[in-house]
Amino acid sequence: MAVRTVDENADTLLSFDELRAQLRAVGEERYHHKHPFHLMMHEGRLSRGQLQAWALNRYYYQSMIPVKDSIILSRGPDPAFRRAWRKRVIDHDGDGISEGGIKRWLKLAEATGLNAEQVQAGTGILPATRFAVNEYLNIVRSRSLLEAVASSLTELFSRDLISLRMEKLRQHYPWLSGGLDYFQARLTQAPEDAKFAIEYVYENAKTREQQELATKALRDKCDILWAQLDALYFSYVQPAWPPPGAFQIEEK
Amino acid sequence: MAVRTVDENADTLLSFDELRAQLRAVGEERYHHKHPFHLMMHEGRLSRGQLQAWALNRYYYQSMIPVKDSIILSRGPDPAFRRAWRKRVIDHDGDGISEGGIKRWLKLAEATGLNAEQVQAGTGILPATRFAVNEYLNIVRSRSLLEAVASSLTELFSRDLISLRMEKLRQHYPWLSGGLDYFQARLTQAPEDAKFAIEYVYENAKTREQQELATKALRDKCDILWAQLDALYFSYVQPAWPPPGAFQIEEK
Repeated sequence: MAVRTVDENADTLLSFDELRAQLRAVGEERYHHKHPFHLMMHEGRLSRGQLQAWALNRYYYQSMIPVKDSIILSRGPDPAFRRAWRKRVIDHDGDGISEGGIKRWLKLAEATGLNAEQVQAGTGILPATRFAVNEYLNIVRSRSLLEAVASSLTELFSRDLISLRMEKLRQHYPWLSGGLDYFQARLTQAPEDAKFAIEYVYENAKTREQQELATKALRDKCDILWAQLDALYFSYVQPAWPPPGAFQIEEK
Repeated sequence: MAVRTVDENADTLLSFDELRAQLRAVGEERYHHKHPFHLMMHEGRLSRGQLQAWALNRYYYQSMIPVKDSIILSRGPDPAFRRAWRKRVIDHDGDGISEGGIKRWLKLAEATGLNAEQVQAGTGILPATRFAVNEYLNIVRSRSLLEAVASSLTELFSRDLISLRMEKLRQHYPWLSGGLDYFQARLTQAPEDAKFAIEYVYENAKTREQQELATKALRDKCDILWAQLDALYFSYVQPAWPPPGAFQIEEK
């Protein structure tokens, strides 16, 4: 990538508000709040078995989040960055006081009727779930730190989705209500994390090209979330349509 | 992994024939010759658009095969191994005499009616295709060389599938007949590669545990192939069922 000075980019570099708007537009198009599996969930149209498949598969994603954040931590340039970022590892792994997000997700899985040991063992998780989640690890390992941080920015969108989801889960699946601690905690954790990450991205993307790479990392992260729900939908619900941006068949 | 001598394993170590039978059993259960997308292909029930989606997505797999083999080459322990393995890179990338497998796959994609430049650009490839293929790179990078070599052993099964496919493509989609050079070349390349790889695995798996790890690598490779067809089926054909070994919904 060509290194350009901020001056040379003055006319094209996005302001903070413009960058945030561009990132939000990615979410509007690609974030998984629009995925049919979530729409069915919010309409109360998923069976207990389908919710079990969701809780089981997403457990693999949850269990890898602190691995992902530890990779970013290992690439952190200074103590200040690492101090800010290590909060995420603690949020998910827990400490003496808090049980952590992975444990909370296990409680959700148990509320669907699954056995915690089986969920942790990962038996029956869809291969496509593993591939999508492992791609998230690939991204934070192999791209620039800026892009690794930017890939976490789906948290810009998660609060609204989690609020809606908690309301709808309580309404349609009251037997799940005891398992919602994970989401409760994320309501405050996610916006804190997103604030740090978007400020980091704005301050460290010195060129428009870097701003675009950061935006692409967020798109790719959205594809990773979307693909996990595709795998669930197509294995446990049903039909046939390509995700946003994919090849469309013209004649059939 | 505990290092055990061959003597200690004498009662459990599989013979060459037993190991080959165990590897072949993996193929019987999980190789993608049983995938509904292939069954439809062989029955002539795929549209031109569905075959385009297949050729486009599998191009990404084909284009990464010599990358995968170069990773294995870079881990090769000695000149004899690397001399044997580099044949694979040449088979796919070509040389002054042969055009190579990637070019041949492009000709197949063109025979379906796609534009070669668009296929190479990768526009519209399903994210799930990328994730599955990239997992193949993860495996050959992060596991033992033995497992990396073993993951190539789907070539034990490919000759039969390719023979059948060529016959069925010519029968049901005669307009594709000019694009089958890729498969013609694989009919002789794949068995040569498989012979080297299975002998390498037998000679280098010194314990039963290593034989089991090699077998698991082949299972995981089969999952990678299967997931690519799942993504095609579910995006361009239709219904809902989990792959072999995945969580099954009991009540619905």
